[in-house]
Amino acid sequence: MSGQPPFYAQVEQALLSRIGIDWCPGDRLPTEDALIAEFGVSRITVRRAVHNLVSRGLVVTRRGQGTFVASTNLRQPLAALTGFVEDMTAHGLPSRARVVLIEEIAAPESVRVALELPVGAPVTHIERVRLALGSPVSFDSTYLPVDLGRRIAQDDLEHEQVFTLLESRHATPLVDASYAIRAIGADEHTARALEVVPGSAVLQIERTTYTTGQRPIDHEFLHYRGDAITFTTRLPRGAATDRGSAPGPGNGTGR
Amino acid sequence: MSGQPPFYAQVEQALLSRIGIDWCPGDRLPTEDALIAEFGVSRITVRRAVHNLVSRGLVVTRRGQGTFVASTNLRQPLAALTGFVEDMTAHGLPSRARVVLIEEIAAPESVRVALELPVGAPVTHIERVRLALGSPVSFDSTYLPVDLGRRIAQDDLEHEQVFTLLESRHATPLVDASYAIRAIGADEHTARALEVVPGSAVLQIERTTYTTGQRPIDHEFLHYRGDAITFTTRLPRGAATDRGSAPGPGNGTGR
Repeated sequence: MSGQPPFYAQVEQALLSRIGIDWCPGDRLPTEDALIAEFGVSRITVRRAVHNLVSRGLVVTRRGQGTFVASTNLRQPLAALTGFVEDMTAHGLPSRARVVLIEEIAAPESVRVALELPVGAPVTHIERVRLALGSPVSFDSTYLPVDLGRRIAQDDLEHEQVFTLLESRHATPLVDASYAIRAIGADEHTARALEVVPGSAVLQIERTTYTTGQRPIDHEFLHYRGDAITFTTRLPRGAATDRGSAPGPGNGTGR
Repeated sequence: MSGQPPFYAQVEQALLSRIGIDWCPGDRLPTEDALIAEFGVSRITVRRAVHNLVSRGLVVTRRGQGTFVASTNLRQPLAALTGFVEDMTAHGLPSRARVVLIEEIAAPESVRVALELPVGAPVTHIERVRLALGSPVSFDSTYLPVDLGRRIAQDDLEHEQVFTLLESRHATPLVDASYAIRAIGADEHTARALEVVPGSAVLQIERTTYTTGQRPIDHEFLHYRGDAITFTTRLPRGAATDRGSAPGPGNGTGR
């Protein structure tokens, strides 16, 4: 057993791996007695594992009723340019990506303008479903200039992050990004990816990421399930400035 | 005529006042010749008025086809704590409010927690539809502690702004606010107010505004029509911090 995590951590991980697969939000976890029997551990070990999941906001205990899978509406600070895996890691959640599509196409007009490319320029287009706790949280449509995109397309996008790949493998430092945030109804394609009914509320973030010299190198449409995430920020009183409204294209929807 | 605005500004204002009433997004404005006849002004005056509306993003001119009312998806910087009227004024748009409801109720739990009130404390609840160019843009549900709320409730909320009233008339300086931003489907009540189909995508901002001493004095649920607004910001690369995620309640929906 040396080198293994302690029992409570193993039970915690085993329970976590079944949330979103065997158990959905609102479902009741097995009783303490059932977990003791299943894992062959002590009551104190089971309690510690469950307590940790409560602390992480993944399950809730209702007195006299049992322990239930929490609805996973994540609160995500809108404070810095971060990627999906980084965000989920900050929540203590394992995450993964399912690559739906990689293609090379002529840049759609709104993408072309955002990436400051000449008319007719090709881009690499990548579609991924981002999952946390086994459930789709976001459907991302990413556009990269082909010089970068062709290299990224050969990387392992199921397990590696585009931001990390850009920074670490492809020598492209990320400086900042412009965000455009709106609520839209899911079209058929997005709804299928997010496993929701078409028309369901989706939080769309249209994001252009810049490298040094204010050069745009990544334009994305992130489609978050409305019930999966809440973005938070804190703003001081004062006159609105033009911050954030300058770059970035119009009202394109990514498809 | 002395003291009157110039003709082109009068024509511009006259056209603006009909957008959203006589003409909806996508509708064609009368031809130049028709506007010359209607207003009894020169072609150059009509052109200047229309040009100004184009500059303000309210109409678009399509070569050979005419001038059309633009879809009014406003880009709103998420940069400072501002009120609806301030935001619309920054866009050069006249705005108004329709008060739907003013009531005194026991604070709903999520509101009570946000306003740091004791259990059972009363709050003033105000519902307003916010209109720009004659169309509903936002449906706002505002909760104030009754000491402030009773005074605000006697003000002219159709024409005055809660933020201005708090700051100027009720000696309550505003310092900052926490924002929680999510996409939800409009319930029946919100849909009716926003003149959309129930279930339509709505951008909900749950906002707690603080006065000096970190004292919360205003808790709101702002429901923006998804097709009416895009919030923008710019974020630097770096690790996400907890900024904005600390105060503010959970996933209440305001009703």
